[in-house]
Amino acid sequence: MTANDLFEQIKAKESFLCIGLDTDLQKIPSHLLDLEDPVFEFNKQIIDATSDLCVAYKPNIAFYESMGEKGWESLKKTIDYIPKDIFTIADAKRGDIGNTSKMYAKTFFETYNFDSVTVAPYMGSDSVTPFLEFKDKWAIILALTSNSGGLDFQITKDENGEMLYQKVLKTSKSYGENIMYVVGATRAESLKEIREIVPNHFLLVPGIGAQGGSLNDVAKYGMNNQCGLLVNSSRGIIYADSTKVFAIKAREQALDLQQKMKALLSSLL
Amino acid sequence: MTANDLFEQIKAKESFLCIGLDTDLQKIPSHLLDLEDPVFEFNKQIIDATSDLCVAYKPNIAFYESMGEKGWESLKKTIDYIPKDIFTIADAKRGDIGNTSKMYAKTFFETYNFDSVTVAPYMGSDSVTPFLEFKDKWAIILALTSNSGGLDFQITKDENGEMLYQKVLKTSKSYGENIMYVVGATRAESLKEIREIVPNHFLLVPGIGAQGGSLNDVAKYGMNNQCGLLVNSSRGIIYADSTKVFAIKAREQALDLQQKMKALLSSLL
Repeated sequence: MTANDLFEQIKAKESFLCIGLDTDLQKIPSHLLDLEDPVFEFNKQIIDATSDLCVAYKPNIAFYESMGEKGWESLKKTIDYIPKDIFTIADAKRGDIGNTSKMYAKTFFETYNFDSVTVAPYMGSDSVTPFLEFKDKWAIILALTSNSGGLDFQITKDENGEMLYQKVLKTSKSYGENIMYVVGATRAESLKEIREIVPNHFLLVPGIGAQGGSLNDVAKYGMNNQCGLLVNSSRGIIYADSTKVFAIKAREQALDLQQKMKALLSSLL
Repeated sequence: MTANDLFEQIKAKESFLCIGLDTDLQKIPSHLLDLEDPVFEFNKQIIDATSDLCVAYKPNIAFYESMGEKGWESLKKTIDYIPKDIFTIADAKRGDIGNTSKMYAKTFFETYNFDSVTVAPYMGSDSVTPFLEFKDKWAIILALTSNSGGLDFQITKDENGEMLYQKVLKTSKSYGENIMYVVGATRAESLKEIREIVPNHFLLVPGIGAQGGSLNDVAKYGMNNQCGLLVNSSRGIIYADSTKVFAIKAREQALDLQQKMKALLSSLL
């Protein structure tokens, strides 16, 4: 998918919502547990209930991987089920030496037909570039993450006063085309100067909802003239309810966010 | 496995060799391809031929993941086949927010019974600590990696003149017990000052062989009084030959390294 395709979808749906599929057998409604593939069944109902309201789905790969082969099967069925016009993100945070990153890219772009993968930048250029060799596929590089530990290293200032995540942005944007960045919603105040470094890149923004970030601040400081934002909510939507009406309640939460996004998008539409 | 168990094994085998199982269908001998599970058959023969010469095996998870469910099945069979006194490393370079890292830890320590996982430090403490909550299991944190891109960020000096990988070592060693670090053999000259920061930790050292690092330099600057080193070779051993005698040739390469290690260990034995 191209950035233009994504922007077209954002305009059509009046939404820049990404829904995180952190599907956990411990948390899904218990009536699903008797089915053959409860994880896929849960995802299918969430997708059916929300696909007109969001522009991206982001399965969190850890949750599938932890179930072994069965989990990868559920993931495959999920990715095949998502409508093709919706952007898909393998939230996998991979990154290794070149020949290994190439295998990770193959996994997510070929074996499972994702549009993008989240990538950790610690190992530098040759850990990222193999992901950029696939046409219309995307590497989404961690810049400033929403978790508390994110501050251990990401805001360390170098000799020139530049913080590590700023250096990651400046250095990695020359690795190639089709790069997006992860910036946590809990760091919305940093989006202004992030936009000075990467004015045109799409940003994947987790951390509203359960983690406490503000959608309004994210839009205020992070939106560009192609929207440039994919704001993720996972637990706040998919675990809004744990009864048989979970999908209806998930839709209500997604709709609430979509309506707020519609208002925030008004100047671009 | 405890560090003492590992040192006992090093003494018994006179070896600190780790063999990387980067098993790739494109590279294994073609006569195996007709079998039901060529990847496991290849690993089995490599393990049979080398398990008396090495103290650790390190499957590179990307290679298994790229084959989908089938690859995870081969991985499971491989890990179950490795003798229980040998240390096992899931080279997966994972790391995410706390609830997600917990799922990755569950994957590798419970679903697949590995002794350790390699972990990327970019997201800081809560991305690492969930791996430290499992008794006698280990997180192996990336410090200074062997690839060219490793220099993009890892040697960036902060305001106090400290390089990022040094800060990673200093900060993360307080995250908990049962931590090891990845230091590339191509950075052997840095091992001396790394040992000033982490004198007692085990170091996993990839990068001899195909990547050009020197075993002698690694031992000279990195060895401590419990050896403290696991030196990995992958391609140099497992792809030494591509005919029916591949396992015999792999053994020759492993034996050559083990003999060199025996000499380097002489003062500790």
